[in-house]
Amino acid sequence: MRVPKGDDRSRRVCDTCGFIDYVNPRIVAGSVVTRDDRVLLCKRAIEPRKGFWTLPAGFMEQSETVEDAARREAQEEACADIRLDQILAIYSVPRISQVQVMFRARLASSIAAGPESEEVGLFHWKDIPWSELAFPTVVWALTHYAQTRFLSGFPPFTNPPGTERLTR
Amino acid sequence: MRVPKGDDRSRRVCDTCGFIDYVNPRIVAGSVVTRDDRVLLCKRAIEPRKGFWTLPAGFMEQSETVEDAARREAQEEACADIRLDQILAIYSVPRISQVQVMFRARLASSIAAGPESEEVGLFHWKDIPWSELAFPTVVWALTHYAQTRFLSGFPPFTNPPGTERLTR
Repeated sequence: MRVPKGDDRSRRVCDTCGFIDYVNPRIVAGSVVTRDDRVLLCKRAIEPRKGFWTLPAGFMEQSETVEDAARREAQEEACADIRLDQILAIYSVPRISQVQVMFRARLASSIAAGPESEEVGLFHWKDIPWSELAFPTVVWALTHYAQTRFLSGFPPFTNPPGTERLTR
Repeated sequence: MRVPKGDDRSRRVCDTCGFIDYVNPRIVAGSVVTRDDRVLLCKRAIEPRKGFWTLPAGFMEQSETVEDAARREAQEEACADIRLDQILAIYSVPRISQVQVMFRARLASSIAAGPESEEVGLFHWKDIPWSELAFPTVVWALTHYAQTRFLSGFPPFTNPPGTERLTR
């Protein structure tokens, strides 16, 4: 561990070859996917938060766009073909060095549980299992989505005020 | 290199301890910073594109929010204290596995060249050195900014149509 020349913070550096192991936050891409008035949720088949409900979302991979990643995750987790509408929100979770880019999207196919989901479903607002949602950002994205239901263009949301204790 | 259990793509895996070296895209956070009708640009003192003009922007670090990162980069590159307004654009550059989150911001201090800048300046639109801009995304962010000058809330821009050859 040392501060590379011209840098201002400590990194893992190889004394033999000079390789600097930069570690940077990871991007999660996901979507609030709707059909008519129902929202797509996936019951997690894997840890963390196995058995809890989440939005189709996951880590972005090399050589894809953030839009590609959101579409791929919907396909992988819910066998869902989706049409992205616009960016709903960008949340930062500095405690775990994560940035979540959430889209608003429309469902364009049938759905089925992928390998990482125990079950998938389309939920009317009143039927959303609020007490069984996997992560705070799922709650944020759903409530932010609700505020945009009748809007066709809007600035993206960010972390809600007063939620620092959840993310720092 | 092998496909870990439950995964679907090849990763570097340690056969001794089982460590999986996930590699994910990196996030660049930056801003189009203005005062009155002038835009803040920084002449790069480092490679790549040394001597060309860019917006204050750079790789996000661990344990910060994307907003923190944009403010830090303005401070580091132009000694500028800025006030973020809203997200201007999210660009993906899959060829180099990069996602760029660009904000619209206001300058709230004086400016001076930081260690990574040869020179910094505030440019009227007609004086922007268009042929000496460092990266395509700088051109995109400036032209997208121009489209929002009289808007107080708008959906973020993404990669302009027809630019795939620059990013794929």
